[in-house]
Amino acid sequence: MSDVDQRLEELGIEIPTPAAPVANYVGWVKSGNLVFTAGQVPLKDGAFQYQGVVGKDVSVEDAAEAAKLCAINIIAQVKDACGGDLSKVKRVVKLVGFVNGVPEFQDQPKVINGASDLMVAVFGERGKHARSAVGAGSLPLNVSVEIEAVVEVE
Amino acid sequence: MSDVDQRLEELGIEIPTPAAPVANYVGWVKSGNLVFTAGQVPLKDGAFQYQGVVGKDVSVEDAAEAAKLCAINIIAQVKDACGGDLSKVKRVVKLVGFVNGVPEFQDQPKVINGASDLMVAVFGERGKHARSAVGAGSLPLNVSVEIEAVVEVE
Amino acid sequence: MSDVDQRLEELGIEIPTPAAPVANYVGWVKSGNLVFTAGQVPLKDGAFQYQGVVGKDVSVEDAAEAAKLCAINIIAQVKDACGGDLSKVKRVVKLVGFVNGVPEFQDQPKVINGASDLMVAVFGERGKHARSAVGAGSLPLNVSVEIEAVVEVE
Repeated sequence: MSDVDQRLEELGIEIPTPAAPVANYVGWVKSGNLVFTAGQVPLKDGAFQYQGVVGKDVSVEDAAEAAKLCAINIIAQVKDACGGDLSKVKRVVKLVGFVNGVPEFQDQPKVINGASDLMVAVFGERGKHARSAVGAGSLPLNVSVEIEAVVEVE
Repeated sequence: MSDVDQRLEELGIEIPTPAAPVANYVGWVKSGNLVFTAGQVPLKDGAFQYQGVVGKDVSVEDAAEAAKLCAINIIAQVKDACGGDLSKVKRVVKLVGFVNGVPEFQDQPKVINGASDLMVAVFGERGKHARSAVGAGSLPLNVSVEIEAVVEVE
Repeated sequence: MSDVDQRLEELGIEIPTPAAPVANYVGWVKSGNLVFTAGQVPLKDGAFQYQGVVGKDVSVEDAAEAAKLCAINIIAQVKDACGGDLSKVKRVVKLVGFVNGVPEFQDQPKVINGASDLMVAVFGERGKHARSAVGAGSLPLNVSVEIEAVVEVE
């Protein structure tokens, strides 16, 4: 069992089979050593979680849980890109997090911390990434968070 | 005539001369094998198309046409980056699509499908990309869609 | 003194020590020859500048100054990534600029020109980048602009 798999077990996190996009795109593309993922949303067991606008329908705390779910789905895509072996992840390079907040929302960083914290909990130093956290004007299916990633792999 | 040029002809799509940015930036930069494009908007023959907010001024169907136009302009930039030879495209790696929708808009994926479908129609398997579709709070000149791309070339 | 340092001196710009993120992410990650920066905001001497919504609280001119500050903070991160030697910058590859504008805002490009113009003033031809300028729905701490970058280094 790899270090990463061990940490996931300790955290009680099961990486799901990655969601297959329902259109003419894919969940990830690898170019050289970089894996670019599609934007991931808070999908769990096939159902959308934490739908709604942050600061109105969804609290900051719940939105951070949504961000954590996005991160789990990012890891699912990256695992697929690594042929199932997450020990091949060399570095989480970049996360861009879009938060579906009210116009006056200011706590995008607190929300996206839900994803950043998970990346470091799972991958350690290799999980420390550059990050942007911004407010979206709206998001698909009214989810509260969408996050995309660039990850360096072996 | 390359496969790609043949598909474009079959689709009745003419790739325009890429729009020259009017400021201190450029339409594309190549670094290693990756071409990063500037955000492309629904510009056709020098005029903006599909201006307005999706879900209010512009329908989802028309916004998907706007996304298709963005994709054509992305291909124009990539063609320029390839010295005119689109057969050098190895993979469309990533699209990020921003939709200028009403705050309650939820159909960003349907809109950006207009671009994703075109990429696959033109480049086949090599056109399948990772994708993010998000709502913008507003867009330049009130266009309904803006899309940027990362493309791997030979 | 490198060309870049000389230009900075002529422009009267001092590159600050880069802001250390206060969460589980970092200001930049280098992968191969590419430096990906975290989203930078108009922070100067530890204080946020130009907070507010563009088109309501903040003018386009002031927002362009905010974008210039973001660019200075991007350069600070890249300088750190280059071990202090900005002559190692081969190319500013990409900027993505998010503008916290009113819903009807249309002048994102004029705002982000504040960053683009600085990059070219500092790095010359190597500063010419691909760029996206979009409207955010909201931004962290109500800053008016956030910009992220991809930069190719030696």
